[in-house]
Amino acid sequence: MTKAVTRRDTVGSVTQRKVSLTGIKPTGEPHLGNLIGAIRPALQLADTYEAMYFIADYHALTTVRSADEMRHYSRSVAATWIAAGLDTDRITMYRQSDVPETFELAWVLSCVTGKGLMNRAHAYKAIRDRNAAAGIEDLDAGVNMGLYNYPILMAADILLMDTDVVPVGKDQSQHVEYAADIAKSFNALFGETFTLKVPELVLPAADAGKTLPGTDGRKMSKSYDNTIPLFAPSAQLKKIVRRIATDSTPVEEPKDPDSSSVFLILEQFAAPDVVADVRERLKAGGMGWGELKNILFETLDTQMAPLRERYEELMRPDSDLDERLAEGGVKARARAREVLSGVRAAVGVD
Amino acid sequence: MTKAVTRRDTVGSVTQRKVSLTGIKPTGEPHLGNLIGAIRPALQLADTYEAMYFIADYHALTTVRSADEMRHYSRSVAATWIAAGLDTDRITMYRQSDVPETFELAWVLSCVTGKGLMNRAHAYKAIRDRNAAAGIEDLDAGVNMGLYNYPILMAADILLMDTDVVPVGKDQSQHVEYAADIAKSFNALFGETFTLKVPELVLPAADAGKTLPGTDGRKMSKSYDNTIPLFAPSAQLKKIVRRIATDSTPVEEPKDPDSSSVFLILEQFAAPDVVADVRERLKAGGMGWGELKNILFETLDTQMAPLRERYEELMRPDSDLDERLAEGGVKARARAREVLSGVRAAVGVD
Repeated sequence: MTKAVTRRDTVGSVTQRKVSLTGIKPTGEPHLGNLIGAIRPALQLADTYEAMYFIADYHALTTVRSADEMRHYSRSVAATWIAAGLDTDRITMYRQSDVPETFELAWVLSCVTGKGLMNRAHAYKAIRDRNAAAGIEDLDAGVNMGLYNYPILMAADILLMDTDVVPVGKDQSQHVEYAADIAKSFNALFGETFTLKVPELVLPAADAGKTLPGTDGRKMSKSYDNTIPLFAPSAQLKKIVRRIATDSTPVEEPKDPDSSSVFLILEQFAAPDVVADVRERLKAGGMGWGELKNILFETLDTQMAPLRERYEELMRPDSDLDERLAEGGVKARARAREVLSGVRAAVGVD
Repeated sequence: MTKAVTRRDTVGSVTQRKVSLTGIKPTGEPHLGNLIGAIRPALQLADTYEAMYFIADYHALTTVRSADEMRHYSRSVAATWIAAGLDTDRITMYRQSDVPETFELAWVLSCVTGKGLMNRAHAYKAIRDRNAAAGIEDLDAGVNMGLYNYPILMAADILLMDTDVVPVGKDQSQHVEYAADIAKSFNALFGETFTLKVPELVLPAADAGKTLPGTDGRKMSKSYDNTIPLFAPSAQLKKIVRRIATDSTPVEEPKDPDSSSVFLILEQFAAPDVVADVRERLKAGGMGWGELKNILFETLDTQMAPLRERYEELMRPDSDLDERLAEGGVKARARAREVLSGVRAAVGVD
């Protein structure tokens, strides 16, 4: 414990608050659901913690097979978070691939991790279950070793940054439990001269993981193809809002706001007085879906316009986006090197 | 193909001959069996190939749990090879841990490697078979993820150095086949702008893998605890040679040289005329095991004395051993960086 304190002290000024780490996988265009359920709650953490965010590009390599896609989405996800309010002067944001120490630590961790732990990983088991359900004899069909090793790389991401807490929803909690287990296993075997900090789960902000309905009424999700892109140009945004599924209740009849996708989305973006007013009018009857959709479109378009502009600015090849990420990478590597050099000494590779 | 040529050309002068790569796991004290079966044949390769040798310290971490042991054996194995004739001015010898690019490449490779391939790896299957035979229900018991991922790290070692050939015995051939398979898989998915060189197996020199009998007559092997250490001091060497198992044939009776461990060891170290003479005397009768053992001891002691001296010199903390290894690491990293930067560009992480 004394050691851990010393270690953090030498990192510099970033010592007082606990460090929280959040990984962001660069796959797919960001949509409104991401903003409400993930980005905004994650950004709120920076008020409480020394927050670090990384673009998990090498994680995405388990599925992404196009270099152009990888490049685009890595920049896009960074630009999205900055446009949404992440201040890179105050918060360390970096690309996983800019911290190669991650992979060396991942190897060390793999040597102290029982294979049984990986066999029980949720994501891996889900694929096996799908294969079984599909009548595929080889339950490992379609599983590459990146997917299988995923929890170890995630543990390396976390442990390398001397992370105190990892804010994740329930569906991701196993990853943090695994990282803690693996850290303890390392400490038990090699912890005489250096210990890895055992990370803790932290519940994300109250509205984290909040789901927004998509255009078909189901949860907004890339896999349902029902998303409203965060940075759609006005004309496209209008078209998509028009497409949101509604029932055929006539204009004059009363409507239940809380079973309307259009209203539920509006509720997340409009000012409270606007929301209250629309709610009353829907319940009273006389407001049609068309009018409601117009209000939603105007609200989203107005709110998203500055973000969209900032995003587009950042996505230009000559913007300072890459520089910001590189600076974040330098800060992250400084932390990483300290932890890794402790690990190397502990195992006798120094 | 054009690319691969360009790539090698820029590495510098080490271009004309094909590159052969040999990994050496730093576990256990070197013994006479290693010298005859592995070290000498491997060193002969340097006449034909641009030979590279690396100390696979991070591979050893799958089993080594002591930092001091790791440090000692890493230096010891390097000192052994240099004492046995490896010229570090002419041949690149480096520690795996000095080339961290290995681990980043290993992650990329894991993303293009099906889990089924690992399930079929000989070493892994052997552990499962042992568990099954022992009635252990969980066939993965005792398997850590380092062991399971071993073939991928080995592929990374090989592919990272743009290796042409890997000289291995039959029992290790699967590793090279896997490295070739994994390279092809990467090339098929990402090979448009950069390809990994597909390595080839090469049969080691004629006497490679030659087994020497140990003190109990079985193959000399650490696992049988029947070895004759390479650098035992004279007194210890004499004792060990005296211990070699013989039958109770009386001095005056004829003996079969080829079924005598003592003679079979002598055959590998004594001058041909000495060997021929001893062979005749054994067959004729009149030479006792004691005399034969004295001849063997004198032969070994004389031959090993200069190696032992050089080894001890290198093992001193103030020797230039670490510097030699560091220099090798710098050369190896230069090759590694080139390959890795090609890989990064190919997958879009650049």
